[in-house]
Amino acid sequence: MAQQKPAEISKDGSFKRQVNQFTTPFGDKPDELPVEAGRYRLLWSAACPWAHRSVIVRKILGLEDAISLGTVSPMRPKIGRVDWEFSLDADGVDPVLGAQYISEVYQNSDQDYSGRPTVPAIVDVQSKKVVNNDYFKLTNYLEADWKPLHKKQAPDLYPESLREEIDALNEIIFNDVNNGVYKCGFAHSQESYEAAYATLFTRLDEFEKRLSTQRFLHGDFITDSDVRLYTTLVRFDAAYFTAFNTNRNLIREFENLWGYVRDLYQTGGFGDTTDFDAIKRHYHLSITISPDKAEPTILPKGPDLAIWVTEHSREQLSGREGKFLIH
Amino acid sequence: MAQQKPAEISKDGSFKRQVNQFTTPFGDKPDELPVEAGRYRLLWSAACPWAHRSVIVRKILGLEDAISLGTVSPMRPKIGRVDWEFSLDADGVDPVLGAQYISEVYQNSDQDYSGRPTVPAIVDVQSKKVVNNDYFKLTNYLEADWKPLHKKQAPDLYPESLREEIDALNEIIFNDVNNGVYKCGFAHSQESYEAAYATLFTRLDEFEKRLSTQRFLHGDFITDSDVRLYTTLVRFDAAYFTAFNTNRNLIREFENLWGYVRDLYQTGGFGDTTDFDAIKRHYHLSITISPDKAEPTILPKGPDLAIWVTEHSREQLSGREGKFLIH
Repeated sequence: MAQQKPAEISKDGSFKRQVNQFTTPFGDKPDELPVEAGRYRLLWSAACPWAHRSVIVRKILGLEDAISLGTVSPMRPKIGRVDWEFSLDADGVDPVLGAQYISEVYQNSDQDYSGRPTVPAIVDVQSKKVVNNDYFKLTNYLEADWKPLHKKQAPDLYPESLREEIDALNEIIFNDVNNGVYKCGFAHSQESYEAAYATLFTRLDEFEKRLSTQRFLHGDFITDSDVRLYTTLVRFDAAYFTAFNTNRNLIREFENLWGYVRDLYQTGGFGDTTDFDAIKRHYHLSITISPDKAEPTILPKGPDLAIWVTEHSREQLSGREGKFLIH
Repeated sequence: MAQQKPAEISKDGSFKRQVNQFTTPFGDKPDELPVEAGRYRLLWSAACPWAHRSVIVRKILGLEDAISLGTVSPMRPKIGRVDWEFSLDADGVDPVLGAQYISEVYQNSDQDYSGRPTVPAIVDVQSKKVVNNDYFKLTNYLEADWKPLHKKQAPDLYPESLREEIDALNEIIFNDVNNGVYKCGFAHSQESYEAAYATLFTRLDEFEKRLSTQRFLHGDFITDSDVRLYTTLVRFDAAYFTAFNTNRNLIREFENLWGYVRDLYQTGGFGDTTDFDAIKRHYHLSITISPDKAEPTILPKGPDLAIWVTEHSREQLSGREGKFLIH
């Protein structure tokens, strides 16, 4: 039952995530994507941490009317290739794009597209083409370039005075945590797995310490970095710990990280866009980067989700009253 | 990649453990197995909770010189059938029995033996035949019938005044905990898995409560019931939680169970017969009842084993001083 090594596995067995192909930024220059209400559709899966971050930011900033949302199933289709399917929609097609699989929308942009078709994807509704799938920068575009369309009193998740710090921390969060769990879970050698595991928990220990004296990663206010760390932490105990072998500790065993992630979960835009059922089904039951892998049939029942709404007492660290903190 | 249902899976997908074939008791009647130093060899795998309990009792009672020990590898051999292999021994054969696989010793007893060859197995060294593989009663034979060969001041793990209570509790521990984790892990239907999971955690919650006011299951002294509960609890966080989907809670998240299992771990006979490496490799990497199942190649690195020797403060519940408690 030998499996072919998937395209994103290096010779040493480590996971190297593919580079995004559609990276044109948003802006008002001729070669940039114009910021325009009603022009784009954001495609996401509730299982996917990279897509989830865009959906959180879209909601916090009140961009829901400006950018519509298309949702693919957390379960990979059983078609012998890695894809995402609009099987949650009536008739199994996205009502705006008319596509059954997300690969079709990628092929609208590039007939020869041979990469893994990913979410998030920003699609131009008119042309039905993917115009941006840059999950790393997408939230920053929504936060900075889409500002004219934010709701009134939207928080500033990417304040200019903090951008350098946020960008620097985001690199660390990306490499060692967001993608770090994937490096553990998709490793094809014990060595590359253990290296990723060591880096991941070193970072989590650092964040645990950092969050002992401040409510959020950059102080009293939620920023883009918090959105990024959240999407991994919220999936950790329910999925990665078991499915990706990131099993030194559960997040709920870290005092500060556990308070922090519940604080965010209980904030509008976070918990209300978090779908544990989709997360669990995707990571435990559905194929990921290996379409030839035998699929398990039992969905682990734990953990108990009721604990997500328990008291976290993190307000006392912020030095200010109030629940939702606007920069 | 459809898998044939293994022999011990019922129509409803639940796991039904096979019945033991060799159940002649020890004793001094003509049709019983004589209690005699040097006559028998106990075969075990350090991975196996059923065998581990016999090895714990053998050590606590000082039966090590009376009954020799043969150890099979925690890794199932890759030979297309479920077996245990003496691959840890020089030349890959048990030095006393000359066997490579434990199935050979079962076939010495019954040429047509078609069950799953299991540990623990008591083998008559002269005939090289399995004479008893009754994992349920074996510790009780060692505790009661082998008393003449116990070391001086050996504790009484199965005191006559408590036998009724111990037997009753052992039935519960067996059905809902020891075998309960297997019912979760080997279930072939979501329903049978969830039923076993519910029963398992209901029992663990009961034991958590029971152990809040007393040091051991039957009071101040270690008994056979504690040995039985220990072998499942000590494997739980390192193996079952992930490999058998018993993931409502880790044992280290239960205040009393976690203190209790460390108390036992730190007692002679328990921790010194517990081999976490064997346990992890068996449950995470080796096939179990499905020889046709694809095997994973990554060994989860967690959990941190250093926490097993941390202070548990359970002595204060026992009302007596001293570490090792003899009934």
